Amino acid sequence: MEYPSKSIEEAVNELSGLPGIGRKTALRLALHILKQSEAQAERLGSSIIELRKRVQFCKRCHNFTDHELCKICTNPRRETRLICVVEDARDVMALENTHQFNGLYHVLGGLINPLAGIGPSMLHIEPLAERVRNEKIEEVIFAFSANIEGDTTAFYISKKLAPTGVRISSIARGIPVGLDLEYTDEVTLARSLINRTRLASPGE
Amino acid sequence: MEYPSKSIEEAVNELSGLPGIGRKTALRLALHILKQSEAQAERLGSSIIELRKRVQFCKRCHNFTDHELCKICTNPRRETRLICVVEDARDVMALENTHQFNGLYHVLGGLINPLAGIGPSMLHIEPLAERVRNEKIEEVIFAFSANIEGDTTAFYISKKLAPTGVRISSIARGIPVGLDLEYTDEVTLARSLINRTRLASPGE
Repeated sequence: MEYPSKSIEEAVNELSGLPGIGRKTALRLALHILKQSEAQAERLGSSIIELRKRVQFCKRCHNFTDHELCKICTNPRRETRLICVVEDARDVMALENTHQFNGLYHVLGGLINPLAGIGPSMLHIEPLAERVRNEKIEEVIFAFSANIEGDTTAFYISKKLAPTGVRISSIARGIPVGLDLEYTDEVTLARSLINRTRLASPGE
Repeated sequence: MEYPSKSIEEAVNELSGLPGIGRKTALRLALHILKQSEAQAERLGSSIIELRKRVQFCKRCHNFTDHELCKICTNPRRETRLICVVEDARDVMALENTHQFNGLYHVLGGLINPLAGIGPSMLHIEPLAERVRNEKIEEVIFAFSANIEGDTTAFYISKKLAPTGVRISSIARGIPVGLDLEYTDEVTLARSLINRTRLASPGE
């Protein structure tokens, strides 16, 4: 495809580097930007530049932040004795959207994955152990994906934290809300049976 | 949805203003940009700003260009006696990709559409008439969408150009290549019958 001008070609090249955006969509976006005011294009462009320039990782929990410490770590109303450990900062957003957790987070920056060459030393596991030792943490909650990397990482960290005596838990594995039992795979079903939760019985 | 930082929120707001990009996709794009190098984000952002700043309309044919005149108008190897008239600059790209036309273009900037309040004076029709009078044009080809606005515009311009005596034609309406006859709507089929093209017969 030949583009009518160098600037259009460059914008299409750059935009089509984004995930899920092919050259056709990139051209559509470029033509949309051309229809907007110069101020609007300026705002879009600089929001992208500023995004990468400003966003850093929280010194304490490695969540995204524009400052040294993140919004959650600096919020005085959060429960500081609870730490939820997650794979990456995206997971913090997902958990925050549930409005069910009021503790702090710790972002590992990945999960242990020997096949991909990711060992424990490449993740923020040591800083987590330090936080548990120094911050009067009562419970560490693992919120990992339900796969082998998640299980390996949970196993490794719980071994490492064992000497501190901190309580360790993991988010429940079970049937997703809204899913029919017959469509649930057997591994999930087995885990949901093992981790069954007790309902109040008439005798109690 | 709450975002971990102001810069992420702003980038999501701006990105989700693009066509076909919702807030979820915008967040995915923002997180992708965060994973890239600062130089890459800078390149993407400034390509958008430069795009809007540099691209203008060709003084002669109103196609997109970074300069005063577009690539096609300044190309000495184009056939200057042929003008293809199109609705907008996107159509120029589509026609160029066919590699079947070597003449010049004239972008109207829209089609006559009384219902939407677009009259002939709002389009670049007068400059087209001037070009036909001054540039030794032999043929004007209409390449409009096959709808009522396209037909109205073609009718209006051909009336306007009649005194110049220039040859006027329109791209063929007919069955799209690859489409089965039985699935073609009757209007298209009727037009394709009226505009039938003669094949060589054994007697010739």
